[in-house]
Amino acid sequence: MAGGEPSEQDAAKSVAKEKRVMSSEVVDSNPYSRLMALKRMGIVDNYERIRDYSVAIVGVGGVGSVAAEMLTRCGIGRLLLYDYDTVELANMNRLFFQPHQAGMTKTDAAVQTLTGINPDVVLESYTQNITTVEGFNKFMGSLTRNMKGERLDGKSGVDLVLSCVDNYEARMVVNQVQSQPCMQAYDLFFRRPAMNLVKPGWNQVVASGIDEKTLKREGVCAASLPTTMGIIAGLLVQNTLKYLLGFGVVSKYLGYSALKDFFPTMEMKPNPQCTNNSCLQRQREFEATKPARDAAAKAEAERLAAEEALAATVSLHEENEWNICLMDDEEPKDVRERVPDIPSSSGNLPEGLFRELPDSEVLDKSVISSESFVDAEGDLEDLQRQLEALNSF
Amino acid sequence: MAGGEPSEQDAAKSVAKEKRVMSSEVVDSNPYSRLMALKRMGIVDNYERIRDYSVAIVGVGGVGSVAAEMLTRCGIGRLLLYDYDTVELANMNRLFFQPHQAGMTKTDAAVQTLTGINPDVVLESYTQNITTVEGFNKFMGSLTRNMKGERLDGKSGVDLVLSCVDNYEARMVVNQVQSQPCMQAYDLFFRRPAMNLVKPGWNQVVASGIDEKTLKREGVCAASLPTTMGIIAGLLVQNTLKYLLGFGVVSKYLGYSALKDFFPTMEMKPNPQCTNNSCLQRQREFEATKPARDAAAKAEAERLAAEEALAATVSLHEENEWNICLMDDEEPKDVRERVPDIPSSSGNLPEGLFRELPDSEVLDKSVISSESFVDAEGDLEDLQRQLEALNSF
Repeated sequence: MAGGEPSEQDAAKSVAKEKRVMSSEVVDSNPYSRLMALKRMGIVDNYERIRDYSVAIVGVGGVGSVAAEMLTRCGIGRLLLYDYDTVELANMNRLFFQPHQAGMTKTDAAVQTLTGINPDVVLESYTQNITTVEGFNKFMGSLTRNMKGERLDGKSGVDLVLSCVDNYEARMVVNQVQSQPCMQAYDLFFRRPAMNLVKPGWNQVVASGIDEKTLKREGVCAASLPTTMGIIAGLLVQNTLKYLLGFGVVSKYLGYSALKDFFPTMEMKPNPQCTNNSCLQRQREFEATKPARDAAAKAEAERLAAEEALAATVSLHEENEWNICLMDDEEPKDVRERVPDIPSSSGNLPEGLFRELPDSEVLDKSVISSESFVDAEGDLEDLQRQLEALNSF
Repeated sequence: MAGGEPSEQDAAKSVAKEKRVMSSEVVDSNPYSRLMALKRMGIVDNYERIRDYSVAIVGVGGVGSVAAEMLTRCGIGRLLLYDYDTVELANMNRLFFQPHQAGMTKTDAAVQTLTGINPDVVLESYTQNITTVEGFNKFMGSLTRNMKGERLDGKSGVDLVLSCVDNYEARMVVNQVQSQPCMQAYDLFFRRPAMNLVKPGWNQVVASGIDEKTLKREGVCAASLPTTMGIIAGLLVQNTLKYLLGFGVVSKYLGYSALKDFFPTMEMKPNPQCTNNSCLQRQREFEATKPARDAAAKAEAERLAAEEALAATVSLHEENEWNICLMDDEEPKDVRERVPDIPSSSGNLPEGLFRELPDSEVLDKSVISSESFVDAEGDLEDLQRQLEALNSF
């Protein structure tokens, strides 16, 4: 699929393949069991919806490639990948690409790896430079096809654009796309949010700190680490999942200062004097929908608060971070059963207290049963039912 | 190397292989160029030191496997990997393992992948359950060999233990290791820091939030995401690099609440009433070295403050996040040269202001030169020299 946009036939063919059922069955052979568990846990209402979504990733480098792998493992419906660069050994300091892929285009190498990981994802590889006129036109054209490869006559066929590029020009070009929301991962070379073209509702994930003295310049090699890149990709895709599947709070701007583990957040406002007419049009549309968004945000905040209140009520043992045990007249036998091989009283502890954990001598001598602690908690199914009832208001 | 600890001959053989030179040459074929750039940038004094370090990773699952890959790509000297589990398709919702590895032990699959990524890293695979008496003894024995495979007669041959296990028993067993520092990644199932066995100086990276209602129970499948696991692995290895290579601030405790992108930090104190005698001994030793540590921490804080002050002084354009241009009498020509294809004045802007970016019409029509923005900044070499001089006090 390299060397430009795939034909409509290609795209249609790639989607015609049989996808595996997204099952919630708890068996080792089910690649989706731990994702579908997000439903049972009451975190995501309808996880299967992820198959309906198309995400475009512009820039398949240290951040974009890891974001692509995460979305692929999550079972995203379709990924559109854009990059004109080739894999080099100098890229091995970040996750994803392997030395044997050196010399391949990044988009083709990514499709090779991602297909192996999850053949259910529709992958489109666009090996092109979007900052050329031809590349930009192809880029815009590719965004107007839906998952079946059908042209949508100017309407967007992509739900979200992830901007993971490493240079200013490409970021400015992505900013020209006004037809769908976009999240930007600011890489380590580039630290100036392009405020004058930021679209209303756009979200930003920004890396800074460890490499803030880094510049991208001819003949100068910029430092980067697999840690920082992986963290940024993780925060970006976490935000993407929250945005697409409707859970948690979607961050508008989240920074990461690696040297001090500091994560600044802020609200970003659109520029009412933006020179991009399309941006101004989106700003007016965004302003018009503000009451509806405010109401939805309020409802979500209330839902989360209620969820937390419930969790605080029901999670007496789950959340007991300090291992404090209350000696209730009704409960001592039950509590003591949690660690069967602990003496029922400990001579050197004040009356009414006992150790939840065996002391080191006991631990050294005994083989610890792998089932000792798993039955300690309340009836999970019951709690889930309560939580779901609360969530469905 | 599967099925227990490697013999001393095996270990010696694996280290005898020729490692590639850790070069800072900026060429595409150099896998270390972007790591060694951390030295040139003044962030790490001596990056090559990473080859002297041995890190043990206990638990090669959603967090441990990604941590292993990150350290491998960073060129760590030696990794010791412990797990008794096999790869299943149900693990494909997290990074690292591939479907074709299903059925392999996690340690063998990890060694296979990591060797391909960076053959310079010495990898030791321990396929064993450390919570059995036999497994624990082997585990402790393996920690007393150095990188050449030589026994150290009880002294530790490992610089750091990363605890990436998913159950309480294993975490308690890792807590028994008193001979070297350890960082713990609390996975999503387990949220109670084991305060009564935490050793002085231990560091914690904790995930919570999105899966806080998750429990590990027989027949119940716990939810997890590649995002949360990847972020935790990234934070853990970032902290590891800071600890081993001596840069930035090493976090004592860092949490991640995924639903709200909240990252709580705190200091953790050892328990003076701990039942583990070895822990109490370490507490006394740690207390004795407090003055030296305080002095080092103060010096590091001062170094960072000085570095920041310098960065603030020299980075007028690098740090200009809001694209504000000061019109100095001496500078207008220079500033305007930054974007050659912008008109020198814009009719609809107040006097004295001009656009740094082309407006959308210009951008649509022109092919953007990929070199337009790269020469804008000051003399990097000069700034680096200043910074290095400052760092060397």
